Parts: sequence; structure tokens; C-alpha cells
Amino acid sequence: MPKWEAGEGNLATPRGFRVGAVAAGIKKAADALDLALIVSDAPATTTAGVFTTNRVAAAPVLLSRQNLRASRGHARAVIVNAGNANACTGRAGLRAAQETTRAVARLLGIPAREVLVASTGVIGVPLKHELILRQLPALKENLSRENASAVAQAIMTTDTFPKSCVLCTKVDGKELHLAGVAKGAGMIQPRMATMLSFLTTDADVAPALLQKMLRAAADASFNRVTVDGDTSTNDTLLLLASGASQVAVKPGTKIARHFQAGLIQLCETLARMIAKDGEGAKKLVTVEVCGAKTAADAARIARSIANSPLVKTAIAGSDPNWGRILCAAGYSGAKFDPAKVDISVNGFFLCRKGLDAGFEEAAAKRQLDEKELTVRVELHQGKATARIWTCDLTHDYITINASYRT
Amino acid sequence: MPKWEAGEGNLATPRGFRVGAVAAGIKKAADALDLALIVSDAPATTTAGVFTTNRVAAAPVLLSRQNLRASRGHARAVIVNAGNANACTGRAGLRAAQETTRAVARLLGIPAREVLVASTGVIGVPLKHELILRQLPALKENLSRENASAVAQAIMTTDTFPKSCVLCTKVDGKELHLAGVAKGAGMIQPRMATMLSFLTTDADVAPALLQKMLRAAADASFNRVTVDGDTSTNDTLLLLASGASQVAVKPGTKIARHFQAGLIQLCETLARMIAKDGEGAKKLVTVEVCGAKTAADAARIARSIANSPLVKTAIAGSDPNWGRILCAAGYSGAKFDPAKVDISVNGFFLCRKGLDAGFEEAAAKRQLDEKELTVRVELHQGKATARIWTCDLTHDYITINASYRT
Repeated sequence: MPKWEAGEGNLATPRGFRVGAVAAGIKKAADALDLALIVSDAPATTTAGVFTTNRVAAAPVLLSRQNLRASRGHARAVIVNAGNANACTGRAGLRAAQETTRAVARLLGIPAREVLVASTGVIGVPLKHELILRQLPALKENLSRENASAVAQAIMTTDTFPKSCVLCTKVDGKELHLAGVAKGAGMIQPRMATMLSFLTTDADVAPALLQKMLRAAADASFNRVTVDGDTSTNDTLLLLASGASQVAVKPGTKIARHFQAGLIQLCETLARMIAKDGEGAKKLVTVEVCGAKTAADAARIARSIANSPLVKTAIAGSDPNWGRILCAAGYSGAKFDPAKVDISVNGFFLCRKGLDAGFEEAAAKRQLDEKELTVRVELHQGKATARIWTCDLTHDYITINASYRT
Repeated sequence: MPKWEAGEGNLATPRGFRVGAVAAGIKKAADALDLALIVSDAPATTTAGVFTTNRVAAAPVLLSRQNLRASRGHARAVIVNAGNANACTGRAGLRAAQETTRAVARLLGIPAREVLVASTGVIGVPLKHELILRQLPALKENLSRENASAVAQAIMTTDTFPKSCVLCTKVDGKELHLAGVAKGAGMIQPRMATMLSFLTTDADVAPALLQKMLRAAADASFNRVTVDGDTSTNDTLLLLASGASQVAVKPGTKIARHFQAGLIQLCETLARMIAKDGEGAKKLVTVEVCGAKTAADAARIARSIANSPLVKTAIAGSDPNWGRILCAAGYSGAKFDPAKVDISVNGFFLCRKGLDAGFEEAAAKRQLDEKELTVRVELHQGKATARIWTCDLTHDYITINASYRT
């Protein structure tokens, strides 16, 4: 089977999709894109979604979960706004989300249960959804296969760059595509989903299999990212499959494994973009833990290191303070022998067998000055591994978040 | 029984103790106090200790645990240095700690098992304990009942003020004292103990009861503080009881309950000082959760809020972003109904029944501008409560920690 390759194009590159974005006045800057619509023209489209595990789930998460169930995995449209999360907004928030999906359904001539909704932005402020309703006709006019870069723009909040990716491959001579957009930046420690990410494919996949594959891909990608350990109220990851490639993905086949690999590659690419664009971040940090007794231990240690403010500020300052890394591993709850641990940055050893490796300070600093770095912790206790992506913790994180709401 | 009252004096106010501090050259500033000794002159002194639960425990923690066991709760001296944590230093670190305690034992003419040791400062750098050994004679000369404020100074690292407290009461006409010093600032999320805190009392208490009471006091105080969620490798809390007051504290008595209350009051006072002096902190924040189904749920929610970087930066910026508080409660793992939650700051309501309380922005900002504030989350699910002390997260935390080691 040929590899998945990075492709030119956008969210609408997989055949069967049209997308669009407009400025609805929800973000503070009046002319900023903040409303996007993703539509599949194929009636047989299948859809999978994973959502936040936060007990305080936003109205759009509650409604999208419900519609995905009601449509039995056959939703065909996603309406997304940025600038207001429609979270902690009670019944009025739920009503706003419902009226929005119903209006989109009328606009497209499909049942309301086939419309999903997602929101991102400030929490606890009522969403003026009439701003959305007013723009729906213009948004419909705007739908096309070309302007998906506007969608990646429209879903940004504190993101500093739009995040999108397209992959393509060939199966039995037929072209097959996977595409996605994502937004991230802050309140990022997805558990079972990410902030917002929307994926499209022209593969032909039944809903149950699509859901299973999306969850597996999320676990290997978005669920391995942390910016600040705060799990959002709005995390939503959706995948729409139009079937337009006429490549059928059936359970247990070689094609299914190939599709799963591409889906993981797509999600991982977008997840890494989110970590790289962590609020205030200057560096993308991959924390790799290997030689653990169990996968759970490895993940626990990797997450503990990736969430330690002391480790992340030291990385910001290019301070080779490996003791903080070992300390964070120590309080993770995982069992290991500290006297066996090796710690390296980009292959440069700071700690061997739990002790200072006797490194040259300037050489260590050079590794830590890199914009992308891998912190590798080898436990020598077993064979399990885990990987988490994160970023450094800088003054700018504080600046961005000290007055986000006001 | 008369109340415990804040008293004048110092760590040596409880009779039977002498303390001292000198500059040994372990801290970078050559003339900074960095070595302290606490000695009880009463041969019958009992001692209790609680230590870090971090799997990566520092050499002084390993040795103090061992000596406390070997002496069956009868240690009489504590040697403490700041500037180097003697953590992640392997066998050489353990040997340095042992040679230090042995030298102190010779100096005082007591068995080595009766000497405890504690260290705080940078991790992973070998401790030059010859600097300590060299200063021991001067330190012995320095011992007195008057200069305990120097001890509080000597154990500071990034602390901005020394932390000490003295309490006194009367039992059957006899004066009874409790005194303590502590240091904190960064790498603070004690679990079963705090960074470093040393307490003295002239009560007469058997080791087993003293240990039980100290653990109860730690759980109600130091274990309720978090600055950054990083649990240190060196957390050590010790209590020495000289018995010199001739007030006998026996299990199950009114005097025992009185002593326990004073001990909690002492630990709480010191714990609050640690939160207030969190690295870069401008505000002391008490997070109170009430109306939870279980005490575990209440504690989980309180800790989740107190550790949320988004909540803590919003408080730094006096931004009444209650949505982040509810969000952090939501991902804590505790079960509750978001639609029942009320959130207030210093009694000023930001959120009622999970929704914006319709507050006036300027009035909310005034509450958040206070130097000490209480964030109260009422769940209305049950009767359990929990309280955690923390601080705001500011630019200065980043500045302090981006180059702590180098």
C-alpha cells in the first residue's frame, strides 16, 4: 500500500465537501472571521466525534453528542463559531445552540439532527446567536471547495497561526484523502478529544468503524498534548466521511489499517501544531518516556513532566535543570527506581543513572535553545513507552491569560 | 481550657531548646545564612516527622526517616542547609548526609541516630558537605535561645520573607508553648508534608502520639497548600517535644485535644505564609469548596481549582473569569451538577446556579484586587467541605524559575 503523503489543498479536498467562513461579529475585532460551516453534499456521509470528558460540558458539546446519536452517525454539516464558547450558559445556551442547528438545517434542507455545532472562546458569557443566524445566508453563498483556509482562520482564538493538514494516498488506483483543521493554544489538556478539530475524508466508512478509528487516532494524538493541564469545556473532534472516493474501508482489512495509519498521521500533525502554538510558547517539546513497566506508568510520568510548571519554565529559560524532570517523574505516582534513570535532550545526556551526567553547560544550553526539542526519559524498568507533546511556559502565557475575559 | 494565643518569641521559646545559624557558603551570596542547627537539651525529647511522598526522595529525607525509626522517635538535633537540596545525588549524597549527622552527633555528644538532617535548594548538584563540617564548631558557639529568627532566615531559598510563629497557652497553671519555622515558595504541592518546617514544643508527649498528631496537623495545613502542583523531593516536617513544660499530653484526654488544636493552628499559620509567599505571588488565595457529596470530592475540586494556571493567571489580572473556576471543577474527576454551583470571591457572587450572577464588573474587580481572597464554590450536593491555600500566577514565577539553576 503506498504511503500517505502530505498534499496540497484544504479541508474540502476530500471530494464531497464544501466549506465557508464569514465575519459575524462574535470576536471583538469586527471584521475577524469567526463563523464557519462545513457541509457534505453526499447523503450517505458518516460522522464520528469525540468530545471533552469535562463534567462541565458546553451547550454545543451536549447538543452535538445528542445529534450524533440521533442521526446514528450520519451528520452532514458542522457550524462552528469562535469568540464565545457557549459554556456555563445554562438553558439559554442550549436553546441558542438548538436554534442555530435548526436554522442551518433549514438553510441546507436536511434534518436538524444531521447538523453538529461547536463553539470556542470565553466561558460564561451568553452567546448572541442572532449574530450567527443573521449571517447564515451569506455563509451559504460562501460555501466552496476552495476557501477552506478561511475555516482554519475562523476557528482561531489565541492561536497565532491557522492549523490545517491534507494527506493523500492511492488505493486500488483510486485517490483517497484525509484533511483537517484544528485550533488550540490555551486550556489544553485534552482527555478523549481536543479543543476543536474538524476532519474530512472521501473514504467510505460505516459509522461504528469510523467512530472506533477516530477514538484510536485521538488517543494517539490529541490526547497526548498538554499546554497547561486545563481540560476544556468545549473539546470537540469530528470526522466526516463522504464516501466520494469509492474506497470502501471495511473492518479488519489491509485498507482499514492503512486508513487508520493516515488518520493517526493527520491527527498527530494537527496535535503537534497545537502544542507548538501553546499560549505564549516559544518551543515545541516532545516528552518521551521509555523503559517503563507498564504503558500506564509511562503515560503518567510523561504527563507529569509535561505538566510541571517548573520543568516548563526551565525549558523556557534553556536551563538544563534535569532534577526538576526527575522530580516530576517521582511524584507522578508511577513506580520506578530513580537510580536507573537516564535523561537526555535531543540525544544530549543531562542525567545518567539518576545522577548528573557531567555535561558541559554551554553544550546543554545549545540543545535547549532549539525550537523543537525532545526530552527523553529512560527508566530501564521494562519495555513500555509513552509520548506527550507540550510547550515551554513563558511570560506571554501569563500576559495572555491575566486579562483574557476583560 | 484557655485558647492558644500568638506569642512573642521564637523557635527556642518552648523551654529545652537552643538554636543557631551561620553562613557556610552553600548559597551563592557568600555572607547569606544557610546552615542552621536545632538542639534539644532534654534527653527525653520525643520527635515526629512527615516526609515527601515523591518517589525521588532526597538523601536527607532518606536518612532522617531512617534515624527517626532507629531512635524510636527520640531524635534531639536537626541540621539544615539551604542552597543545595542534596537530591538526585546518589550514594555520594547519602554519604554527605551521613557524615554530616555523625559530625553533629560528635559535636553534641549524642548518638548519630538522634540527629536528623534536611536540605533545600538546587537539585542534582553534589553537596559540598565539607562546607558544613567546617562551620559546625561556630554553629555550636552560636546556639542560644535568642537567635531563632536567624534559623528562619537560614532555611529560605526563593522565599521573600522568613516564616515563623509562636503560640502559647496555659494548662493547669503551667505555660505550654508551640513554635515553628518554615520555608516554601516553589515546587510546592506537599503531599503528606511540606517543603521544610521545624516545630518545637515543651509539651511532654510520647513518640507514637506525637507522630499521629503531627500527621493530622500536616493533613489539615501543609497538605492543603499548593503553589505550582510540583511535589518536592525534599519535603520535611519535624516536631521536637522537650517535655520541659511538665505538661503531659496523654492519648484521648482534653489536654491532647487542646494540644492538637494548637498544633493545627501553628501549622496552618505557617502553611498560609508559604502560600502567600508562593514564587512571584502577589495574592494569598483560599479556595473553599462546600456542599460536596464526599470530603474526597471536595478536596479534588479545591485542588483542581487551586492548581489551574488559567484560574491563577486570571486572579493575577483581577479578571472575574468564574468560567475557568467552574471548568477546573469540571475536570477534577468529582461528580456534581454544574447547574447547581454558586461561586463567590470574598462573599461577592460571580456565578449562581452555574450561570453568570449578573455582577457589576468594577465591583468584582475590587474584590479580586484584594491581597487576600477567598474563592468559595458551593456545590449544593451534600455537606462535605475542603479548603486549599494557593496564590496567583504572575510573570515573576516565570522569571524566578526560567534560570533558577544557572
